[in-house]
Amino acid sequence: MSSTSSFAAQSATSPLAPHQIDRRDVGPQDVQIAIEYCGVCHTDIHQARNDWGASNYPLVPGHEIIGKVTALGSAIEHLKVGQRVAVGCFVGSCRTCSSCEADLEQYCLNNFTATYNSPSKDPGGFTYGGYSKSIVVDKHFVLTVPDGLDPAGAAPLLCAGITTYSPLRHWDVKPGMTVGIIGLGGLGHMGVKLSHAMGAKTVMITTSKNKAADAMKLGADEVLISTDPIAMQSMTNQFDFLLNTIPVPHDFNQYIPLLKVDGTMCIVGSVGPTAELNTGPLIFGRKSVAGSLVGGIKETQEMLEFCAKHQIVSEIELIKIEEINHAYERMLKSDVKYRFVIDMNSLI
Amino acid sequence: MSSTSSFAAQSATSPLAPHQIDRRDVGPQDVQIAIEYCGVCHTDIHQARNDWGASNYPLVPGHEIIGKVTALGSAIEHLKVGQRVAVGCFVGSCRTCSSCEADLEQYCLNNFTATYNSPSKDPGGFTYGGYSKSIVVDKHFVLTVPDGLDPAGAAPLLCAGITTYSPLRHWDVKPGMTVGIIGLGGLGHMGVKLSHAMGAKTVMITTSKNKAADAMKLGADEVLISTDPIAMQSMTNQFDFLLNTIPVPHDFNQYIPLLKVDGTMCIVGSVGPTAELNTGPLIFGRKSVAGSLVGGIKETQEMLEFCAKHQIVSEIELIKIEEINHAYERMLKSDVKYRFVIDMNSLI
Repeated sequence: MSSTSSFAAQSATSPLAPHQIDRRDVGPQDVQIAIEYCGVCHTDIHQARNDWGASNYPLVPGHEIIGKVTALGSAIEHLKVGQRVAVGCFVGSCRTCSSCEADLEQYCLNNFTATYNSPSKDPGGFTYGGYSKSIVVDKHFVLTVPDGLDPAGAAPLLCAGITTYSPLRHWDVKPGMTVGIIGLGGLGHMGVKLSHAMGAKTVMITTSKNKAADAMKLGADEVLISTDPIAMQSMTNQFDFLLNTIPVPHDFNQYIPLLKVDGTMCIVGSVGPTAELNTGPLIFGRKSVAGSLVGGIKETQEMLEFCAKHQIVSEIELIKIEEINHAYERMLKSDVKYRFVIDMNSLI
Repeated sequence: MSSTSSFAAQSATSPLAPHQIDRRDVGPQDVQIAIEYCGVCHTDIHQARNDWGASNYPLVPGHEIIGKVTALGSAIEHLKVGQRVAVGCFVGSCRTCSSCEADLEQYCLNNFTATYNSPSKDPGGFTYGGYSKSIVVDKHFVLTVPDGLDPAGAAPLLCAGITTYSPLRHWDVKPGMTVGIIGLGGLGHMGVKLSHAMGAKTVMITTSKNKAADAMKLGADEVLISTDPIAMQSMTNQFDFLLNTIPVPHDFNQYIPLLKVDGTMCIVGSVGPTAELNTGPLIFGRKSVAGSLVGGIKETQEMLEFCAKHQIVSEIELIKIEEINHAYERMLKSDVKYRFVIDMNSLI
């Protein structure tokens, strides 16, 4: 075991503050990583504040991790010390169920081990995340970061990036298709960049006219203002796929008529009871509402290569660790373009 | 124009009663049919009673029609007088949109013409349905009934049959799959028969223990009682596909965990606002909720051939036309196994 400096929540009401966390020793299959950057996800706020009633304290958030290898287990040959690597939303899964065997560890039938706040054999009994100087992770869950990707901007790819990349790939987004990205935040801005890079006609669907210019800069071909009934009506039956990134409960029924016959709206933002489903628009067009959760390890690596090839990273605001509590307050007001990333060198 | 005896609702509150309806003359592309049998669908009650606020009176219900050709338009060569034919839920569509070109007339982007209560150039300005001695229909929308299918039992195939067959086919139900049919009524009993004939392990999911024996007789391999939480828990992640035939608003969220990763629940029964959608179970398994509406003409013909091959018809109670108002009352109490069919010879 070795101790490492981290930022942790001590209770549901305490702000994040410095804390010493024990990390497990480096086993034969383990990679020890010095964390350079950690992205800040909305989940971090929910977990730090026990919004979902399942937080265990001390709780070290962070699952958008970029760093460099500092030690390698004896059985690892494909990585080297000093190499830049990444860790996303989970650090373990059963590796034997049908989902794991299909490279879909995110849907592990025996439940994946989340990067933080998951029961674990690690010291402390729970996993600790990336608001920390270092982390020790099983090699299967360690991604390599391709050369040429800005490491700070790449951090949010590990959650916001893969959360949008995976459904766009699963529903086979490609040239000739029209894709709507609903909501322009951390997820939505990645969705626009990725859909554009996949060659689809990409439409940002937002309530806010003042987000239109930004959306076009990010790669949107058009902007559809969802509060304009005439504009919405004019786009009926136009979309092959909708990626709904709105992070809060909302009436999603208004978007279904935008889909072509057999089209799908995939929800990745609002988790839980969201709105009363009107089955009418689904039935009269064989349309679907689906969900999707991050992506598997193989697909996450593929996403990083895709982003390197297309020079895609997240738009970020780089902060010091002591700014994290203020950053949370700003995120709750949607006051960030589009993702905070913590420079972990600021943590002593 | 020729007049024909029909049973029609005269207002939202009037029972169905005898009425003379004018049918259009037989045009070059038209088929005139003497109706032998007409199935009774829940939609008929909704429309007769203006439950959806869009009924036009006099209103002649009926879209599960079996009959014999009595006259053919000059341009028709593939049918002959005396041949047994069928008409389902629609009698017209634009024939030029992408849906129509894909043999999906039910999703016609310019709106199909329903078999009754749709605006029409026919006498009266609206289409009139199958509670009638005869009907005149464009040849494209006339199905042929294979030899060996009991004509009375075949009538409900035109709505209840195709409504369940089409999604089972679209989601590629086949041997090796586990399919759940939710709800045992007119649609559900056809779903069980068809899923079984397609070779899937077929599970009837119902609230009623006393429907178990019937479900097994119809072809179910197992019965899952949805009000038994232990039984439901034991079937988590077991189903490739769920066909939800419950005809009224209900909490469908409880069924989503039964699906395997990437599984779909298709709703065909409850049209309109149905329940608050909990996106959590969709997201943690990339699952979908979809809708489906009857089937296209090509697929409906395929379904009739499939049913002839597998000797599948609906379980019916044959009634005389003067019993129709009583039959409606029984249907509203779910007191029918499993579909009423009107013997049109009883209509003078």
